[in-house]
Amino acid sequence: MLNNEMTGCLKIEYPIIQAPMAGGITTSALVAETSNAGGLGMIGAGYMAPAQMREQIKEIKRLTTKPFGINLFIPKPVQASKNSIKAANQALNPIRQKLQLPPQDNLDVADYIEVFKTFMEQIKVVMEEKVPICSFAFGIPSKEVIAELKQHNIILIGTATTVNEAVENEKAGMDMVVIQGSEAGGHRGGFHKQEQENVDSIGLMSLLPQAVDHISIPAVAAGGIMDGRGFAASLCLGAQGVQMGTAFLTCTESGAHKVHKEAILNIAEDQTVFTRAFSGKWARGIKNPFILEMQEHEGYLPDFPVQNTLTQEIRKTAAAENNPDFMSLWSGQSARLAKNQTVKSLIENMVTEAKQFNINI
Amino acid sequence: MLNNEMTGCLKIEYPIIQAPMAGGITTSALVAETSNAGGLGMIGAGYMAPAQMREQIKEIKRLTTKPFGINLFIPKPVQASKNSIKAANQALNPIRQKLQLPPQDNLDVADYIEVFKTFMEQIKVVMEEKVPICSFAFGIPSKEVIAELKQHNIILIGTATTVNEAVENEKAGMDMVVIQGSEAGGHRGGFHKQEQENVDSIGLMSLLPQAVDHISIPAVAAGGIMDGRGFAASLCLGAQGVQMGTAFLTCTESGAHKVHKEAILNIAEDQTVFTRAFSGKWARGIKNPFILEMQEHEGYLPDFPVQNTLTQEIRKTAAAENNPDFMSLWSGQSARLAKNQTVKSLIENMVTEAKQFNINI
Repeated sequence: MLNNEMTGCLKIEYPIIQAPMAGGITTSALVAETSNAGGLGMIGAGYMAPAQMREQIKEIKRLTTKPFGINLFIPKPVQASKNSIKAANQALNPIRQKLQLPPQDNLDVADYIEVFKTFMEQIKVVMEEKVPICSFAFGIPSKEVIAELKQHNIILIGTATTVNEAVENEKAGMDMVVIQGSEAGGHRGGFHKQEQENVDSIGLMSLLPQAVDHISIPAVAAGGIMDGRGFAASLCLGAQGVQMGTAFLTCTESGAHKVHKEAILNIAEDQTVFTRAFSGKWARGIKNPFILEMQEHEGYLPDFPVQNTLTQEIRKTAAAENNPDFMSLWSGQSARLAKNQTVKSLIENMVTEAKQFNINI
Repeated sequence: MLNNEMTGCLKIEYPIIQAPMAGGITTSALVAETSNAGGLGMIGAGYMAPAQMREQIKEIKRLTTKPFGINLFIPKPVQASKNSIKAANQALNPIRQKLQLPPQDNLDVADYIEVFKTFMEQIKVVMEEKVPICSFAFGIPSKEVIAELKQHNIILIGTATTVNEAVENEKAGMDMVVIQGSEAGGHRGGFHKQEQENVDSIGLMSLLPQAVDHISIPAVAAGGIMDGRGFAASLCLGAQGVQMGTAFLTCTESGAHKVHKEAILNIAEDQTVFTRAFSGKWARGIKNPFILEMQEHEGYLPDFPVQNTLTQEIRKTAAAENNPDFMSLWSGQSARLAKNQTVKSLIENMVTEAKQFNINI
């Protein structure tokens, strides 16, 4: 009963997108295996230098002939006063001390926003390398960028956490839009009223049908989907396909730290929480000592990406020591359904299970 | 493909429960029309005096020969210091003044917990009147009460907001359990760690399949479901049926205040929020001046039902004046899907729409 525009447009077999998780999770093997299995692999390139992006794109092309995609972060003006950086450092220095890291006191905002400087170069790489699909988080690109990408026949996917954001994505010319429910792990991908997005996040069961009623481009469901049940449910709610992060994160091919994978495989559904203490942007992760210690400071921490740069060394050192207490252990609310399996078996099982509901995939 | 134990057990045609909304919303017409249309009508009797309950039960029996149910609140020890009552009154008195109500200063906890005193009498009425189905919010009845109700062949339905609560409901002998996602309007029906239940609420897309994996009694999906899409999606996720509040609240037969109905029919998906300022218990309602003014006081307000009694006159006066600013405008996150329609057309449309997904209802 579905007239699936999404698979036709993306030239893939199954409407299953591997979420573009940034920070080394989306290895070339993860991306290529997803595409080889009939889904859409995505590079989480938000934090990547252009040269690094190009290298990974080339590597993936050697591993698959199927379409794959890449995700970028939309830059926006940073609101981070010297005072907020000072206060963040005051809160972070005791944690740095625990990890035997030196205290930090650099207050120059410019030093913290590297990730925002390279956006236009990233876009250039996407076009030069002819990556067939490009998705965006934290905003919508400018008219000029959209026009140029479209001229290169690149399919564009936006991200929305509210109905209005979905409508804005369609108006701007996105070919489809990911509808991200409150269940989703990692960063909120939307772009409205950040101060509220932790408390006002909308569950996918509510958000998806309401968004679908207001757009005509394909909707891709995201948040809490882990298996054929969530896949079939998303199609009933009006999505044409799904995007899954946590389900791919614990796969064999994912580059997530083993401590991160193990943490997800061992928690219950109520052990994640929204925090902006890691990056300055609200994101859902497993409650750990870092989140708890920083909770009282959430209100005045500097914006993304300043806070992200401030916590970088802490996260890196903790990871090197296999210490989950100070790592950003992003996870959605369906961790009990996570499995350590190959990408191939994840996708095959999803399709088999979803087909049992008599829904045309 | 569904072997629907739920409809068999409840002796109803469609696995659609009208949520037992307390406070006058579940009129006899609403309950009886739901049952007459093939669903299960429920009296929200949490705040009702036993005599009032008996009267409504008798009235409903005159309006339908079909099964219907009733919902009760499980009493538990109240934590409400004189200091917290004093602080609540300090926060509420300026609002009372706006409504030309006298300030309050009664600090005697005992005067505020009427609703907890009558539970055993309420149970007695349920048995004497042979109400076929009884559901519970805020906890699980004692072994003795469960045994007695079962001896009277009354079908018991629990409420869970986490997987563990669902498991506890099954262990205690509930015949089925409502799985309430974060999208749901009104009170959180669960019973664990109240201090966290606003921030840790789990979206239905995540909660439902995880709960279903851990119980063998039928699961009833609740939270954000408004139409055949949510109905079909819930069945895909493993529920045997659905319970809907907001969708019934705006129906013609509902006793909700017209200002309440109009508010729901006019808001977007992101205009509700969790608050405990009305009742002392976390609940989702439309953001209004009362919620915003009380936000800073949430931390130290007395427990349910003390805070509920404290705000009673404010809510009542605001309602009498058609003033939405100080009423508890409970609503789920799917308000954009709410319609002013009859119960019969709500249920018929849901069933017709859900059947289009080729899922056996």
